[in-house]
Amino acid sequence: MTTTSLLQISPDAVTAAARRVMERCDELARVTATPRAIERVYLTHEHATANRMAAGWMREVGMSSRQDAAGNQLGRLETTSGPDEPALLLGSHLDTVRNAGRFDGITGVLSAIEVVRLLRAPGGPGGPGSDPFGHEAWHSPLPFALEVVAFWDEEGTRFGKALLGSSAVAGEWNEDWWNLTDSGGTSLRVAAIEFGLDPSRIGEAARRPEELVGYLEAHIEQGPELHRRGEALAVVSSIASARRFQVTVEGEARHAGGTPYDLRRDALLGASEAALAVERICRAEHHIIGTVGQFEAFPGGVNIIPGETRFSIDLRGEFDGERDRVWGELSRELDAIMGRRGLRWRHREIHNAAAVGCAPLLQDVLREGIAGTSGDSVAAGGDEPSVLFSPAGHDAMTLASITDVGMLFLRNPDGVSHHPEEAVSVGDVGRGIRALAESVLQLAADRRAA
Amino acid sequence: MTTTSLLQISPDAVTAAARRVMERCDELARVTATPRAIERVYLTHEHATANRMAAGWMREVGMSSRQDAAGNQLGRLETTSGPDEPALLLGSHLDTVRNAGRFDGITGVLSAIEVVRLLRAPGGPGGPGSDPFGHEAWHSPLPFALEVVAFWDEEGTRFGKALLGSSAVAGEWNEDWWNLTDSGGTSLRVAAIEFGLDPSRIGEAARRPEELVGYLEAHIEQGPELHRRGEALAVVSSIASARRFQVTVEGEARHAGGTPYDLRRDALLGASEAALAVERICRAEHHIIGTVGQFEAFPGGVNIIPGETRFSIDLRGEFDGERDRVWGELSRELDAIMGRRGLRWRHREIHNAAAVGCAPLLQDVLREGIAGTSGDSVAAGGDEPSVLFSPAGHDAMTLASITDVGMLFLRNPDGVSHHPEEAVSVGDVGRGIRALAESVLQLAADRRAA
Repeated sequence: MTTTSLLQISPDAVTAAARRVMERCDELARVTATPRAIERVYLTHEHATANRMAAGWMREVGMSSRQDAAGNQLGRLETTSGPDEPALLLGSHLDTVRNAGRFDGITGVLSAIEVVRLLRAPGGPGGPGSDPFGHEAWHSPLPFALEVVAFWDEEGTRFGKALLGSSAVAGEWNEDWWNLTDSGGTSLRVAAIEFGLDPSRIGEAARRPEELVGYLEAHIEQGPELHRRGEALAVVSSIASARRFQVTVEGEARHAGGTPYDLRRDALLGASEAALAVERICRAEHHIIGTVGQFEAFPGGVNIIPGETRFSIDLRGEFDGERDRVWGELSRELDAIMGRRGLRWRHREIHNAAAVGCAPLLQDVLREGIAGTSGDSVAAGGDEPSVLFSPAGHDAMTLASITDVGMLFLRNPDGVSHHPEEAVSVGDVGRGIRALAESVLQLAADRRAA
Repeated sequence: MTTTSLLQISPDAVTAAARRVMERCDELARVTATPRAIERVYLTHEHATANRMAAGWMREVGMSSRQDAAGNQLGRLETTSGPDEPALLLGSHLDTVRNAGRFDGITGVLSAIEVVRLLRAPGGPGGPGSDPFGHEAWHSPLPFALEVVAFWDEEGTRFGKALLGSSAVAGEWNEDWWNLTDSGGTSLRVAAIEFGLDPSRIGEAARRPEELVGYLEAHIEQGPELHRRGEALAVVSSIASARRFQVTVEGEARHAGGTPYDLRRDALLGASEAALAVERICRAEHHIIGTVGQFEAFPGGVNIIPGETRFSIDLRGEFDGERDRVWGELSRELDAIMGRRGLRWRHREIHNAAAVGCAPLLQDVLREGIAGTSGDSVAAGGDEPSVLFSPAGHDAMTLASITDVGMLFLRNPDGVSHHPEEAVSVGDVGRGIRALAESVLQLAADRRAA
């Protein structure tokens, strides 16, 4: 595949944009609830501060900016075609897990702002010299409005429920969520009111499909695949289908001293075998990942055989059918393990999300966008960029119910995320900004041709 | 072995004694901090109430009774030989674990009181008609005083440290223990003062070796061995040697979605393998029991690979050397498991108690005592009673540092203990009381002959 670059912009401008993203990631990292760590969660002082900073950066590139009824911060650049044209959304989220890294989500929001800057620069779609930067009234000549969105709360750190902000935008807010509480007992309703939001107006955050052209999100890869392949960027094919279970194993709590092995019904040993079975069975599959992240034994006395053990299973796959087949296999294995040990087990499904496919058109556009950044070595050994599926969830999953979505992955050197050591290079951020800008122009060209 | 019974007492008197023990176990079960469960812990209202009840029952059989400086309740019956003769101690403990059964410890204290009653009855050591029951001034013609002791706190339920009362009696109180706190933050010192004890006088609870003839304890078996053998009673050879460890496994906390299996260093899976190795290695041994009772994974997010897991190992054996050899084997296996998974592990030893042997003389006396209860089917297929080691700790362990100790196990139908379902039959309690009374007379005969 060879594609001509539509964006006639200097490499220096791209480098400057990437450096600005890195500096602003550092600035946002200092907006934290926890000294010497990064923790920026929904409806807090840090949320308000980060939104004010984002609004300033949006306005700096000529966008209007507003906070919506769910606390998401949005910037908008109108098109010369008119004031109410549908918008292409670019963005990601600004909230973090606890003890987070500085790039997950944030890079996507800040890169989107830089894309708007590049599109307005000389060589952008308005043509040479067309962009008197900083004039508020400037409208882009693209055939759609451009919006940058900073979602909250993607991670679900504070109230346990992820993807709140994008659910509100998708019109899928559930009124029961207002009663979710944080670890201090504050309800989402009370937190929203204290933050300055009006729960009765949450519906105003919802966007209608006809208002939107699509949603493009750049995100660091939360794994090492691009690093292994020696490539900077990838097109995302789909976002993982995931199921989560809480499993309870019941045996019999007995005295550790007096109970011989043949009379024990040790719930911890059954659960240990089950955790190893999750690894063994998923590892034998392609594109299935199973993780036991929570594990507790009761009553938890040093000299008492555990009578009950509870653990979680997080199961992800590229395809729903494959994932469900593996769950079936796992269930039969758990039956066998518990049967051998005289234990009972039961499970409760706490999450079930079908795989979300990225729109083929936007996959093509992003592929062309990546290929258009020629001269940079984006893909190793050829022009065709890699296509990966995302085992992790993203705001794009939720947005997919109201508009086409597309995602771009940026190389993550160690594949670490949700951790202070997560990383991305300034070079790859530049490649990502350029590919995203190219993709916007490709989409514009496609729509003009259609 | 055939031994003539020294105790000329009617089976009806023994049955009445056993029924009394069962009724009093029920009465004590109602002295609890938790409705519909049994919880009677050190230095509480329940402790004071149970001691008052025990004092009344001790006085009823003609003993004087006092509470010592550690809160243990003691009864004493002088001998006709003189007021300051050394005493044979009989007893066990009245405190419980949380959600306890009604027999662990309690049966031993109440049976000891019934032994004193039987020894004073017509047919007891004073000869026919010698016992005007209820006369306070009656002294036994045994060549030693008899004491019944109700220890607190054997289980360590409230302050985490077990065998407190018997440690005080053994003169092994550690002044640091006063700073131990319960789950509500109350120190042992404050709890003792509020209970009415004077911490500065704790040393007064200590007994000197020359004051004591020995210590005999009857206790329900905390396992099913006697039930399996179809036998009612056993002589205890030794009390298990035990070591306890807190193990920490360190890996790397990473995102459950994005981290492929070959890059995972999952501390939970390493710990799961370790728990199964404890079972596999100990199960292959005779008389070694290993239990993982506590197990926690961190950070404990459903979508985060555990970066750290902590678990406990409780290792018991009849002999210190065997136990230590197994710990060595287990350590090498943990090295291998963690090495394969790229994990680090470390351990902290939190308890190390050498095996305590019961005195050969008292083992003989108890063997004769059991055999002397002929007519009852105590031992199946012969007169020789079983000899078992105790994998669980008992007050006798502590007392062994100041006097000879002997223990008698009573059959426990399901082998369950530290649980509401722990059980013992009225018939076996009667056999235990009779064997213990016989043992006292055998010991008296031995001492007269010496």
